[in-house]
Amino acid sequence: MTSFRVGLLGHGTVGGAFHELLDGRADAIEAATGLRPELAGILTRSRGDFDDILERSDLIVEVMGGTEPARDYILRALSAGKHVVTANKQVLSQYGEEVYAAAREGGAQLRFEASVGGVVPVIRVINETLAAAHVERVHGIVNGTTNFILSEMTRTGETYAAALAQAQELGYAEADPSEDVNGTDAAAKMAIIARLAFNAPVTLDQVPHQGIEHITVDDIEYAKELGLSLKLVGSAERVNGGISVRVYPAFLYGEHPLASVNGAFNAVTIESPAITEITLSGPGAGGSQTASAVLGDVISAMIPPPSLPAPAEDVELVTDVESAFYLHLEVEDRPGVLAQVAELLGLQGVSVKSVVQRGLGDNARLVMVMHPVLESKFLAAVELIGGLDFMRSEPRIIRVIEEVFD
Amino acid sequence: MTSFRVGLLGHGTVGGAFHELLDGRADAIEAATGLRPELAGILTRSRGDFDDILERSDLIVEVMGGTEPARDYILRALSAGKHVVTANKQVLSQYGEEVYAAAREGGAQLRFEASVGGVVPVIRVINETLAAAHVERVHGIVNGTTNFILSEMTRTGETYAAALAQAQELGYAEADPSEDVNGTDAAAKMAIIARLAFNAPVTLDQVPHQGIEHITVDDIEYAKELGLSLKLVGSAERVNGGISVRVYPAFLYGEHPLASVNGAFNAVTIESPAITEITLSGPGAGGSQTASAVLGDVISAMIPPPSLPAPAEDVELVTDVESAFYLHLEVEDRPGVLAQVAELLGLQGVSVKSVVQRGLGDNARLVMVMHPVLESKFLAAVELIGGLDFMRSEPRIIRVIEEVFD
Repeated sequence: MTSFRVGLLGHGTVGGAFHELLDGRADAIEAATGLRPELAGILTRSRGDFDDILERSDLIVEVMGGTEPARDYILRALSAGKHVVTANKQVLSQYGEEVYAAAREGGAQLRFEASVGGVVPVIRVINETLAAAHVERVHGIVNGTTNFILSEMTRTGETYAAALAQAQELGYAEADPSEDVNGTDAAAKMAIIARLAFNAPVTLDQVPHQGIEHITVDDIEYAKELGLSLKLVGSAERVNGGISVRVYPAFLYGEHPLASVNGAFNAVTIESPAITEITLSGPGAGGSQTASAVLGDVISAMIPPPSLPAPAEDVELVTDVESAFYLHLEVEDRPGVLAQVAELLGLQGVSVKSVVQRGLGDNARLVMVMHPVLESKFLAAVELIGGLDFMRSEPRIIRVIEEVFD
Repeated sequence: MTSFRVGLLGHGTVGGAFHELLDGRADAIEAATGLRPELAGILTRSRGDFDDILERSDLIVEVMGGTEPARDYILRALSAGKHVVTANKQVLSQYGEEVYAAAREGGAQLRFEASVGGVVPVIRVINETLAAAHVERVHGIVNGTTNFILSEMTRTGETYAAALAQAQELGYAEADPSEDVNGTDAAAKMAIIARLAFNAPVTLDQVPHQGIEHITVDDIEYAKELGLSLKLVGSAERVNGGISVRVYPAFLYGEHPLASVNGAFNAVTIESPAITEITLSGPGAGGSQTASAVLGDVISAMIPPPSLPAPAEDVELVTDVESAFYLHLEVEDRPGVLAQVAELLGLQGVSVKSVVQRGLGDNARLVMVMHPVLESKFLAAVELIGGLDFMRSEPRIIRVIEEVFD
């Protein structure tokens, strides 16, 4: 067994989640790469020695945050030819060219998917899927805190201050939310994206940014009337032979791919003539999401990503699965119909979530949505319902998919 | 200059678009990879010889479609150790294991992003971003034709037949749309996705699928009442230690990431405990979109995708850019106010797109959305407007982002 040694700098929310994820997925990673990842050492404020950890590592994961000493450690690791995976948007948006140059000189990989967009793989898609594509424009919702606050203001009609307090209570905003709400965090991420999309050495201090502190409920109300949706948007685009990179609150028309991105989510739309556009979305950075993005980068650094699927495993194909259902019945409009339908459903253990009934002359339509149930049981109930004497046509069924992870 | 020779099998919509794109981006690809891509030969029904093209190629692009002779050519290329990039969902969903085995034995890469989801990089994200992640479920809208038809039925209230005719007229549906509307096309794509996500050797004939031919306007109307949105959904998920892969029309709750995907778009939501979910969306396969996905794969096969951005170029940062604006004015409620505001806007060349005016006792609110205009001109107009004697507070401005590529 050959091992691949990972030195971990930082053991806070992200570092801790990464440590746990690496342990939990070590077997799967070894199966996929032929190398077993092992933690070579952990550096925190109170323990570990950087030089010692560097010496014993094949790759350094930097999730300390902040510019120093993170920048220094990243540069020293790269100069020593060790790969670096980092989530550090501050270092990359302020000292990007220095760090990229160190990686080039050291012949080491530098991967930083986790620095932008939470789990949204915007770096990889720009670097690989769109390698050599001509990117025209990137629009991003790249700060989950502000998107949550604006979504809450829109949904409930409450003020900025109340929505911010709500975000803090739910852990979507920090005690000092300045860098999020004033647009600095988003500006750093847009600088990193612009560097990749346009090869333009943009730094944070070159990105004009406005925040959402001055947004009022009025603005949001009027926007609704006009069919617009309010978001904090980062934009990086080609303009007159140059580029423009900015962050500002913006109204989006309802059909824009970012208009329906709500809550503490991130999303990025990349426009290029050949592809029209790609939109990527997912939860903004939480500890385990960021750790997962870091791990994806670590694995890519271990071995070049394979083009082929792994050898097939013997997996059972299940055909009878649970699903929620919609049931549409055309029935005679007479007493007792709903009761009989409900009884047959109940006998098969099918539970009704909602019902809409509507008269149509002598007939009626009964439309029901069920809670999830084993398909075979639901179909058995529908078979019986179809035989009832008040039925005016074949029952119609369509599956219903609930929220993700409900 | 070292060249990288690409043999092209098929020169229809996708093949033609690929040919054009490869020529147009050859300089950019050479700059990025150090290799200059060159077409080694083109095989169509009427010209070219496969063996001759194979002999002269480093990589084969297969965009003929159909199972034979495409399968045979792919197998022979891989056995000869030549990389293959294909958009062929038929071959992969029916003969996947045979083809993957040939690639492994030949030591060649096989890339097939273009076989699923148009420009949506679902293969790359599952293979790389989520390498060694535990994927729990994939939901996909993987057929643009049916999504267009259902969106039209929802938007206009027209019948399936009318929406299909509309799709055919606009080129979103073929003259014989059977494989799209009966769910076969989506089933093939879900088989490919399931193979990657779960290492399960699923073939097309193992994927139960229903189409949208029997969907009525009634179903869609009732769904609206229940807050649901109707889509043709492919699902691949872990169930009781096995997996289930299916395609069926389904209602999605409004907050589901796929619920707002309208028109001839594809989208895929991948769920995994560590990341919660990632959603990828973009136009369904058109010629240039598919060609672009093929080209991304070709470049990845030429050299391992770089982890670093290319060296920075000297790019001008433009600060004064065009944008549409929302302008919110609190004004005295008296005659002539709108005229004066409109005049000042007009003097700076700012054109008004929509206006909402509302009285509030002695005051009024004037909310306007402008057509795109150079920021400096708009701000100059607002500066002048702010000085008018009927203004009751500072003008408020927020940018407005129009549709993508409008």
